[in-house]
Amino acid sequence: MDFTEWMRHVQQGTEAALGTLLPAANLAPQRLHEAMRYAVLGGGKRVRPLLVHAAGELTHAQPAQLMHAACAVELIHAYSLVHDDLPCMDDDVLRRGKPTVHIEYDEATALLVGDALQTLAFQVLTEHPVSSTAAGQIEVIRLLATASGSHGMAGGQAIDIASAGQAMTLEELEFMHLRKTGALIRAAILIGAHAGVAVTDIRRQHLDHYAKRVGLLFQVVDDILDAEANTATLGKTAGKDAAHNKPTYVSLLGLGKAKRLIDELLAEALEALTPLGTRAIRLRELADYVAHRAF
Amino acid sequence: MDFTEWMRHVQQGTEAALGTLLPAANLAPQRLHEAMRYAVLGGGKRVRPLLVHAAGELTHAQPAQLMHAACAVELIHAYSLVHDDLPCMDDDVLRRGKPTVHIEYDEATALLVGDALQTLAFQVLTEHPVSSTAAGQIEVIRLLATASGSHGMAGGQAIDIASAGQAMTLEELEFMHLRKTGALIRAAILIGAHAGVAVTDIRRQHLDHYAKRVGLLFQVVDDILDAEANTATLGKTAGKDAAHNKPTYVSLLGLGKAKRLIDELLAEALEALTPLGTRAIRLRELADYVAHRAF
Repeated sequence: MDFTEWMRHVQQGTEAALGTLLPAANLAPQRLHEAMRYAVLGGGKRVRPLLVHAAGELTHAQPAQLMHAACAVELIHAYSLVHDDLPCMDDDVLRRGKPTVHIEYDEATALLVGDALQTLAFQVLTEHPVSSTAAGQIEVIRLLATASGSHGMAGGQAIDIASAGQAMTLEELEFMHLRKTGALIRAAILIGAHAGVAVTDIRRQHLDHYAKRVGLLFQVVDDILDAEANTATLGKTAGKDAAHNKPTYVSLLGLGKAKRLIDELLAEALEALTPLGTRAIRLRELADYVAHRAF
Repeated sequence: MDFTEWMRHVQQGTEAALGTLLPAANLAPQRLHEAMRYAVLGGGKRVRPLLVHAAGELTHAQPAQLMHAACAVELIHAYSLVHDDLPCMDDDVLRRGKPTVHIEYDEATALLVGDALQTLAFQVLTEHPVSSTAAGQIEVIRLLATASGSHGMAGGQAIDIASAGQAMTLEELEFMHLRKTGALIRAAILIGAHAGVAVTDIRRQHLDHYAKRVGLLFQVVDDILDAEANTATLGKTAGKDAAHNKPTYVSLLGLGKAKRLIDELLAEALEALTPLGTRAIRLRELADYVAHRAF
């Protein structure tokens, strides 16, 4: 299978699995369940599920177990987007080319959709095997929780919200992004690898280095896309960072240096994979995909 | 130890344990962590932790394991209060006698506080033993997730929000409350019992019947307090249900019948405990406490 086929295969599998895991829209409370499905299904590049599966290939993990772990990570991501778009946060009306949840439904529903999607992520990890042992299963839940909480994604969001109109050093920007987007991307990779055979500490360190580089890479690309792309191709409102006067890699480094940073981060990510051998091919291809998406 | 001493002992232990589990206020992002502590510490009757401990006594569970399970349940409860008070939900300014989180801080912070408290609840259950086996630990996480999600607490909230100005039958009101407040109260009891020695199916059924009755009991009392008490004694805004034109046990039954319903639910709850013997004493005392608090 070439990369494009593999990617489409995982994306379609993820969509189908999420459709099964989400409560049916005809179950009470219907409006909430309909809005949960609206928020999750029918869009998104599923980058985090792709990373779960790619890392799982490295450790010979079972595709079925990876699928549930991938869905849990994607549910956390989806919840964060719904809450991020709320008026008190980024106040956005467009996401994945569709009206955001609070526009299509209402604010209270969007709040509860995010809350319930987060819960569902953890529920999925208790109801489906994602590791060969119960202790391994708990470790997957721990990885996901740690990445999502106040020392991870939610913490990054808090710094992001406070950053509007503030000056930031490059170190502070990196501190924020390692949490805001980096933590969940890293968790996706570690969880995927965890589902398979145990890896040595040194291999895990290489993988973790890759994971951190790809997380930052993703964010630098996001910043450039926000500055350069238009709303129609992006599927979400473009130019938001500048409008909110938020520090980004583009505002701190300028476009040219930000693009060179992409090349550097990609090179570092790929270098970290070298000792991991040929089974790291999907991780390699994904780093390349993340670096060059929509350019 | 008499009931009052036991209650104070559990409440103080819960406060101390929560203070340790919550991120320190001087860790970045400080404002988020400070607000998380503000939301959780220094208030609340800790009814759910009390129920966890009371149910754990029934099955000879370890107090230390019960403490972490109790904190996880309380963190879910605290998150739900923070989100509930937001302007797009109940729009409340007072909670436990203090300004609500979005008043003391801001809306974005309150949103993230709730999100991060939910995550922390699940994280706590992966980092501290709350059952004698890993499989038992996963079952505790599953019980908490199921009770909190769209078929439980968040689903009950969605129905509650949609109910303003709507007519409801008594069955629909019960359907809502079994989810909105009942699900987490039931989970507290089942989780507490789960932490100890295994119970027979028939004993679990009695306990579950008690749990459902106490959940409803709690809500009927809440409705009466909202209608009868004043804001100062309640520590939160009184008269909200009537102001929002929400169906309650008082609006559906009238005050007299609602009070008689309390007696009935209490009698049923206590009856369900009879076959469980003398170790159910704290559960018995708690049902009584829930029924008569603030009357």
